[in-house]
Amino acid sequence: MTHIYNFSAGPAVLPKEVLTRAAAEMLDWHGSGMSVMEMSHRGPEFISIYKAAERDLRELLAVPDNYKILFMQGGGLSQNALIPLNLVGHKPQPATIDFIHTGSWSGKSIKEAGKYASVNIAATGKTGVPPVAEWKLTPDAAYLHMCTNETIDGVEFAFENGVPAGLAGVPDEVLLVADMSSHILSRPIDVSKFGLIFAGAQKNIGPAGVTIVIVREDLLGKALPVCPSAFDFKLVADNESMYNTPPTYGIYIAGLVFQWLKQQGGVAAMEQRAIAKAELLYAAFDADDFYQTRVEKPYRSRMNVPFYLKDESKNEAFLAGAKARGLLQLKGHKSVGGMRASIYNAMPIEGVQALVDYLNEFAGR
Amino acid sequence: MTHIYNFSAGPAVLPKEVLTRAAAEMLDWHGSGMSVMEMSHRGPEFISIYKAAERDLRELLAVPDNYKILFMQGGGLSQNALIPLNLVGHKPQPATIDFIHTGSWSGKSIKEAGKYASVNIAATGKTGVPPVAEWKLTPDAAYLHMCTNETIDGVEFAFENGVPAGLAGVPDEVLLVADMSSHILSRPIDVSKFGLIFAGAQKNIGPAGVTIVIVREDLLGKALPVCPSAFDFKLVADNESMYNTPPTYGIYIAGLVFQWLKQQGGVAAMEQRAIAKAELLYAAFDADDFYQTRVEKPYRSRMNVPFYLKDESKNEAFLAGAKARGLLQLKGHKSVGGMRASIYNAMPIEGVQALVDYLNEFAGR
Repeated sequence: MTHIYNFSAGPAVLPKEVLTRAAAEMLDWHGSGMSVMEMSHRGPEFISIYKAAERDLRELLAVPDNYKILFMQGGGLSQNALIPLNLVGHKPQPATIDFIHTGSWSGKSIKEAGKYASVNIAATGKTGVPPVAEWKLTPDAAYLHMCTNETIDGVEFAFENGVPAGLAGVPDEVLLVADMSSHILSRPIDVSKFGLIFAGAQKNIGPAGVTIVIVREDLLGKALPVCPSAFDFKLVADNESMYNTPPTYGIYIAGLVFQWLKQQGGVAAMEQRAIAKAELLYAAFDADDFYQTRVEKPYRSRMNVPFYLKDESKNEAFLAGAKARGLLQLKGHKSVGGMRASIYNAMPIEGVQALVDYLNEFAGR
Repeated sequence: MTHIYNFSAGPAVLPKEVLTRAAAEMLDWHGSGMSVMEMSHRGPEFISIYKAAERDLRELLAVPDNYKILFMQGGGLSQNALIPLNLVGHKPQPATIDFIHTGSWSGKSIKEAGKYASVNIAATGKTGVPPVAEWKLTPDAAYLHMCTNETIDGVEFAFENGVPAGLAGVPDEVLLVADMSSHILSRPIDVSKFGLIFAGAQKNIGPAGVTIVIVREDLLGKALPVCPSAFDFKLVADNESMYNTPPTYGIYIAGLVFQWLKQQGGVAAMEQRAIAKAELLYAAFDADDFYQTRVEKPYRSRMNVPFYLKDESKNEAFLAGAKARGLLQLKGHKSVGGMRASIYNAMPIEGVQALVDYLNEFAGR
């Protein structure tokens, strides 16, 4: 059988070791006689699974003690509403939220935030991130939102010392909120420089249906009165993500992914692999003009790589040939067209090499 | 090894056939080379899984064509906010919502609804459901909310012809909203008599993290402006539950449960089994006063059976002996104490018989 490599942008490829273990434990977790899906979320078995997942994620990202890690439901999209609902109450109403607009996901965040606050687009970039010196920040804004990796557009912030490059030019009192859905755990980050980081799980963490929120403790407790209790960060934090029944099986799978990441050497090792995979792939696009990419080089995502055939009449033939070679889910997002290869942590370099071999073959090189 | 029977109130026991199949398909669903967790929610493989699940649930509950079935995130608890946010807009603001208060879950719904509407408790019952003639309904209320099976308190509405008994005494124009989280799919219901039915999956449907909402089409499109888009029923319905990335793996497991239910004979067969299991279990409590139950007989839940030892100093010994016999998760909810046996669809009668044997043994009968 052809080896399958799955380039889906999310839900996305998971480590084979994780899936193998999940299959083996499906009917009987550690001699408990129960599937993880069947366990009460308040029983000792699931509590041990939850605490291990929380501890391992804290270790992987070096999350400081004054930050809570929440395992929520609703996806990244829901956070576009839930973050304003939880954070704008720290300022007099109506508050203003600043945004850096670098693609589809920050665009969705801007649209939704307008239901709860005034919105200021501090800077816009379509093929890269505008330099910090050009950001027009609002004095006393509730926070500054950025999507540090745009899944659809393939624009990733350049980072220095675990924070967006040039961030020293932003006043210390500006509260940073970052949507890291599609590149969390792919590089070291300095959590202490952010007020809140969030990520839908279905790219680099685990199955769809789990959303991770990492939030500084002093930001809890100011939810607007209309915020649903189930999504009030303080209630979720005070109840260790069990104010509501949490998505237990998704948390279990995420925990297995965290264990796998630790065995692989953690996020520093992941970053080295991501650099190697991205260099290999972009080189195939840069070789000549058969393929095209649209993102400026410093902002090329290491995780999501949109590309276009110069002759788009060959798109269907390209995708059919890819599928025949076991290279799956390469079609680009409907809003931007073309192709996209998502090469998350769980994508082995052998998969990228297989894609590069096919890119060269299809280009007749 | 002792046979394990898991009486958890939720997350809860799942059919062994479902878990066995999920384990077998974990690494490669139907020759796709992908786990269901790895599939794009917009790809043909997952779309086929989703459509089958929706179709099977529609068939099992005989859901009319003018009702939408939504697969959402956030759990039953979140619906306590999301239903007012989506439905009160049909009336002038501030609207009033009527409630029948029969236990912990309707109590939580009442508290949360107060954030979005005026609340009227039309009737209260602690050990049963007050007769319809005593309900004090508000003229022109937005809707009437009832929890038709209280998971914690074990109070279940009596049903006639698929609706709460005596419902003919309620004016036709009253919009009924029912929380059926813990007894959905355990008996036939007449969906056409309700405006909205909802259920967290983690009792009779599948894993935690999926919430089912069945809603009449004409109720869509009136969400309050502060309702998060990800939870706007109309947006969810218009996008076939894919406005946001849905909890794909949970939907897949729910779909396998629906297939299993159809093979077992559907909800009519489930009801017969539920009656047999409940009669067997309650008889063990009624034999003498060693055990006590607190719910009036017509309202005894067939799904969740709270019970108490007359001599509560023996509680720990009872639970330890149960565990030694493979009878798990029998401790009652912390808010009411005692014991609770949840005997959902996936609990075989052999499990109830094993519990009854132990109840008799422990009582020295």
